[in-house]
Formats: sequence, C-alpha cells, structure tokens
Amino acid sequence: MSFDAVEVIVAKRDGHRLSDAQIDWVIDAYTHGAVAEEQMSALTMAILLNGMDRAEIARWTGAMIASGERMSFSHLSRPTADKHSTGGVGDKITLPLAPLVAVFGVAVPQLSGRGLGHTGGTLDKLESIPGWRAALSNDEMMVQLEDVGAVICQAGSGLAPADRKLYALRDVTGTVEAIPLIASSIMSKKIAEGTGALVLDVKVGSGAFMKDLDRATELARTMVELGTDAGVNTVALLTDMDVPLGLTAGNALEVRESVEVLAGGGPADVVELTVALAREMLTAAGRPDEDVAAALRDGRAMDAWNRMIAAQGGDPHAELPVARETEQVLAESDGVLTTLDAYAVGIAAWRLGAGRARKEDPVQAGAGVEIHARPGDVVRAGQPLLTLHTDTPERFGRAREALAGGLVVGPAGTVVENRPLVIDRIG
Amino acid sequence: MSFDAVEVIVAKRDGHRLSDAQIDWVIDAYTHGAVAEEQMSALTMAILLNGMDRAEIARWTGAMIASGERMSFSHLSRPTADKHSTGGVGDKITLPLAPLVAVFGVAVPQLSGRGLGHTGGTLDKLESIPGWRAALSNDEMMVQLEDVGAVICQAGSGLAPADRKLYALRDVTGTVEAIPLIASSIMSKKIAEGTGALVLDVKVGSGAFMKDLDRATELARTMVELGTDAGVNTVALLTDMDVPLGLTAGNALEVRESVEVLAGGGPADVVELTVALAREMLTAAGRPDEDVAAALRDGRAMDAWNRMIAAQGGDPHAELPVARETEQVLAESDGVLTTLDAYAVGIAAWRLGAGRARKEDPVQAGAGVEIHARPGDVVRAGQPLLTLHTDTPERFGRAREALAGGLVVGPAGTVVENRPLVIDRIG
Repeated sequence: MSFDAVEVIVAKRDGHRLSDAQIDWVIDAYTHGAVAEEQMSALTMAILLNGMDRAEIARWTGAMIASGERMSFSHLSRPTADKHSTGGVGDKITLPLAPLVAVFGVAVPQLSGRGLGHTGGTLDKLESIPGWRAALSNDEMMVQLEDVGAVICQAGSGLAPADRKLYALRDVTGTVEAIPLIASSIMSKKIAEGTGALVLDVKVGSGAFMKDLDRATELARTMVELGTDAGVNTVALLTDMDVPLGLTAGNALEVRESVEVLAGGGPADVVELTVALAREMLTAAGRPDEDVAAALRDGRAMDAWNRMIAAQGGDPHAELPVARETEQVLAESDGVLTTLDAYAVGIAAWRLGAGRARKEDPVQAGAGVEIHARPGDVVRAGQPLLTLHTDTPERFGRAREALAGGLVVGPAGTVVENRPLVIDRIG
Repeated sequence: MSFDAVEVIVAKRDGHRLSDAQIDWVIDAYTHGAVAEEQMSALTMAILLNGMDRAEIARWTGAMIASGERMSFSHLSRPTADKHSTGGVGDKITLPLAPLVAVFGVAVPQLSGRGLGHTGGTLDKLESIPGWRAALSNDEMMVQLEDVGAVICQAGSGLAPADRKLYALRDVTGTVEAIPLIASSIMSKKIAEGTGALVLDVKVGSGAFMKDLDRATELARTMVELGTDAGVNTVALLTDMDVPLGLTAGNALEVRESVEVLAGGGPADVVELTVALAREMLTAAGRPDEDVAAALRDGRAMDAWNRMIAAQGGDPHAELPVARETEQVLAESDGVLTTLDAYAVGIAAWRLGAGRARKEDPVQAGAGVEIHARPGDVVRAGQPLLTLHTDTPERFGRAREALAGGLVVGPAGTVVENRPLVIDRIG
C-alpha cells in the first residue's frame, strides 16, 4: 500500500490517528529514501506536539523493527536478560551488573552505544581498558554469551536501521523529546535484539534526559507496554539522577569504581542500584530467589568480569589510563554540601574530555570528575569537594564554569533530604 | 548574532515567542544553507501548531524581504496599485482588471505566478495568446508601466528568495496551511515589489485554499496588518469561491471570457468582481471617484488590454487555441441546479490538462471546463451543463470522476441561496 507523505503528515498535524498501513508505509519509505528527511522532520514535530496512542506507538515500533534484522537467543542454553538505562551522569551500572547477573546462569547481551553530550557511553568507558574491543560479530557474541554469560559490545548496524536514521534526524530538529519516539527508539532495538527479559532504568532528575517525574513515569509505562505487547518480560525502575551515581564521572575513573564494586566495595548507591537491577533481571528471567549481594562479596562477580573483559581482548589486570593533569575544587566555607548537581558534573566531565561534542570526536580515557563529598556531608573551608582530571589543562576553566551553581555549601546544620535512589517500579 | 537552530526550533515547539534576532538569524541562515531543510521543516510545523503573534509575523516577513532585492516604483509619474488573489477556480480577474485600472492613470505592476494544483495560473492563461511572453527585465517592466500603465509578468527571482525556498519546502512537508506563513509569504513579495497600494482578494469556499470563513478572515486581517505596518495602503475583500468565477476554467477559455468582459459583456459575477476590485485599487491609490464600469463599456479598458498584450509580444487579435476534443456533461433529470462545486470543476479542468501536477509539466492551452448553468438555474434532462475540453480524450474519464457529487440537480422548485460574491471587506 502506498501513501502520499504529505497526507500522512497532515493527518498527524490535524490530530488524527495514523493507520497501521500509514505507519508501515512511512517508516519503510523513509528508510529507503522515498520519504525525505524534511518530510519525516515535519512528521516527528507533529507527533511530538499531537502525540500517538498506545496502538500507534506499538505499530511504529514494529515498523522500525521490520526495517532491519532480528536476532534470536533462543538456541542458547540459558535465558537472557538485558538492561537499558536512559542515561545519567556517573551511570556505570552496566559494568558490574552484566557479570553479576551472568553468575546466576542468565545470559546478558548488552548491546551498547557511545556517549554524546553530558552522559557517558558504556563503550567509551570499557575502551579505557587496554586491548578491549567493542566490535564483535554476531557469532563471537553468541559464543561469549554461552561461555562467559555476559557480553557488552557495540550494537550492529543491522538492528532497526530506521531508528538510526530517525535518531540522527531528531537530534538536529528539536524532536528528541517526544515520548512516543523515545520509547519506540529504545524498544525497537531491544525487541529486535531478541532478549527474553528487559529491565529499564529510567533516570529522572537534572542529569537525566527526563527532568520531570511525571514525564519519566509516562516514558517508563510506555516502554513497559511496548515490551510486554511484544512478548518481552519488561519492568522499569525510576531512579534518581539529581545527583551523580557514585563518586566518579569519566571513562577510566568509572571502570575503576566498577571494579571496586565487583570486589565487594564501592560507593553505597552504585552497589544498591546494581543489586536492585540484578534482582529485577533475574526475576524477569525466572530466577527470583538468588542471593545477588553475596556474589559481589565472594568474588564470583569479579571472576565473571575478568572473563568477560578477557574474552574481548582486554587485560582486566592492566593499569588503567590516568589523566596528565588534575585540579581540585575546594569548599569555600564551612557548612553542609546541599547541592551536587548531576547535570553540572556531567557537563564538567564532558568539557574535561570525557565526552564528545560530535560523533567522530575522540574521548580522553583518563578525563573526568572525582567526587569527594555528597549532599548532606559536613564540609570545611578549603576541603577538596571534587578533583578534575584532564590531559588538556586549558579545559579546567570551562569545566569550573559548568560547576558554578551546581556545587553549593549551605550553613552548618542544614538538613538535606535526598530522594530515595529507586523512586518507583513499573511492571 | 548567531543561534543554534535546535534552540530556535525548541523555543517555538515549547510555545515561546521567537525574538527578533532569532527570526532574522533563522531566515538568513536558512537562505544561505546554514539551517538545513529538515530543521526549517520542523520549525514551520511548530509555527503551524503553536502560532506566531503579530510582531513575530511582521519580523518574519521583514526578514524574508531582507533576503533579496527591493524594487521601487517611486520614479514613475503615476501611483501604483497591485492586486493579489489567494487563488480560485475560474479566477481570471487579473486579466481585465489590470488594463481597467491603468485607464485611470494608476500603474498596475502584476507580478504573477504559474498554476499548481486545481487553481490556474495567470501566466499560463496569458501564454495561450500567440507570441505573448511572461519574462520581462525590470527595465522592460518599468518602461511598460510608464507607457501602457499595466504589466502582467513573471516575478523575478530576486524578490524574497527565502520565500521561494520556504514555499517549496512547505509544499512537501504539510505546512502550507499555517496562516502566519501564508501571510508572510504573500506579503513579503508584495512589499519587496514596492507597490504603493495593494488590494487582496481572499477567496473562501470549496475551490479556495481557505474553506472556512473564520480562517480566511484571519488571513485577510493578518495580511492587511502586515501591509499597513510596512507602509503599503492595503485592503482585503473576502470573496466567494464555493462556485467557480464566471463560465470558464482553463487557459484560453478564460482569456476569451476576459476579453468579453473588456468588450463590455461577460458573466455578471466576473464583471462585478472586476469592478469592485478596480474601485478598491483606485481608492487605495488616491482616485476614489472614477466611473470604472464606463471604461468597460466604452472600449478604453479594451484599448489598454490590446496595448498591454502587444507590449509583451502578444497578438491581441490572434485566434486563441482550441482543444482538439470536447465532451458534454448532461443533466440527468429535470429540476434546478443546486450545486456547481468550484473544487470539483477545478480538479476536472486540471485533469483535462489546464493545470499541472509538477512545476515542470506543460499545460494545454485549450483544455478546461465551460459552464452552461449556474446554481439556481432551471435545467431539463439531457441539457448540457458543462463542456469539457482537452487535446487528450483519455482524460475525459478522470475529469468526469472529479465532477461526481460536484454537480447536483435538485427537484423542480428548489430555492438556491447563493452567498454574495463579496462577503466582507477588511481594511
């Protein structure tokens, strides 16, 4: 069935539902170039402003899946569970989580991306490990899933190619923020990947894509519905991103912290979220009663990590890169740290070289921000609050500018009420 | 001042006003390719759905004018008045109107376009006259305005080039229907052209771009405000387009009818609207008391027509082209013609070859629809209601399909209440 692109745009512009046939046609025609970029851009703006209902979103997601290949893990000897985070500052959870879940006989196929903007990318972090490589063939991935039980690698270009094209377009046309389009973008790849269970970590707060709890909840619910409708056992946690996760933001810095967690230590919030997500993944994959925390304490998770890194050419025992220069950010007065803004820290780490402005830019493995105090901590004037790391010291100035207003010391005795890390669960 | 295109899009998407500086920048950057087509398309969809206020529309129009050259008629010995119609079926009014107004010493510079879709183009109509040419240099135009007093020619590419680019984009992205964009598109060219007075013929009804009186009124008011704010003496008539104007739709067919009007005859509605618009133009140019109708009766308007056509290489006395084939559409029963739908007639004429589907298509000079009965007329079964003209008889079938439902004979005695031709005046 063939349509006129303008008719489809006008239908959504005027507030109508798109039919299944219209959606199938427009995604297919866009993927093949018969619907032009400027036409899809007008349509996505109309979708952002006028919305899509549950059935439209499901069909849109299905059409994006149909634009590419579908993978299957059904021949593996174990169930699969995947995790997706909507992105935050210091969010290194995938690193300890994947080997931790693998300990319990559930395979974790983590197809990941690179960072763009103020949130880091999982592949960028792991590439700070000498020798580690992100690109695996499908066969290599399957072998590693069977042998090690966990793989974190670059998503192939075959999954939902319509989404890749559409995401690049939305990025330059102010249409990223549409919940139907965010949900279908994430879920088309996860459903096409073929995971049996999926746990979504939907971040909410200043350092997250969604600043607002209502919108984050709507996004989570939309994605859970999409996964469920497609036969994927899907659950979502809404988690706080007003404050960075853990005490590091940056590539090698976050790998180091992840290894601490795998060694049974590490910051309490990173451990808490790793354990919470592992429990959800195991439950969704049919293993609800495992003692997850024990596997962090007794070295089993670390063993799985070492094997996972080595299987992809990495040396888990190698020294990690260190930035050439550091500078400390000091408390200017005695008091209580009341604000440690995730967005400000994310921008600072980005400007120090941990992130990239354009897809083709390199990142600095050692760059980033180390955090020495968390909201609620009593601090003294002159005490270091942060350490900034970079290979290019001319970047310190703009990183400090990003932190202005994001790091606040209040009067002694101020009580800071931190939101719980796991705010809600939808599933 | 420089902006990020995404910031400008997001501002309008989120319902904010665009600043003067943002508008100036985005139009200039788009004209020069620094804002991409897909970005402008998202912005125009956001404008369509979220609107612009009067000051934003005025600035947008000013920025489009600033993208190109400005003309001036100030060195002419007489005042200038221009007319713009938003387009309708059988709307040949420019042809008798321009020479008629010129009779009274007001110069009429009619920069016109070609037809696209179901409404015809003034240049296409005049090109059915052997030898007549649409393309004049600015100097040729000025000489003709001084000598003859009227010129109908192709608009040069120098006026508001941003509008040309933007219109082509809107046409393929479902964003034609935004009143701020329609108004600024029309008015940027008219203000840049430099006319002293401007009369707008805003069509409303099935065969018009605006089907709805409220929206047509809003468009008319917006354009009158834009013209007035720019120092052009501007007035608008809202006129009916539920029924075609006159008894012909098609290129040579409409020239023939225009010549009848110039000879003192012709259909009453064409005469009425020509005289009404001529009075408005003369009044706006400072000549309120002329006896317009007399100039149609006594041959002065015909003389001006003959000189205007001859000045552009046309032979006003040449035989006009005639289509190779004709077919009649007959009344199927006795009764009263209750409906003669302008849109249906426009589509039929278009399909017969009078219009074009793509800019580069040719048109048939002789093709079109001749009308033998108007709503309210008593008709008898078997009596011809229309004659269809084309060089390519395989087109008759699809033309007849277009007329289904658009041509209705009701029971004898039915009273048809026709809306007045001039519905309202804004100025």
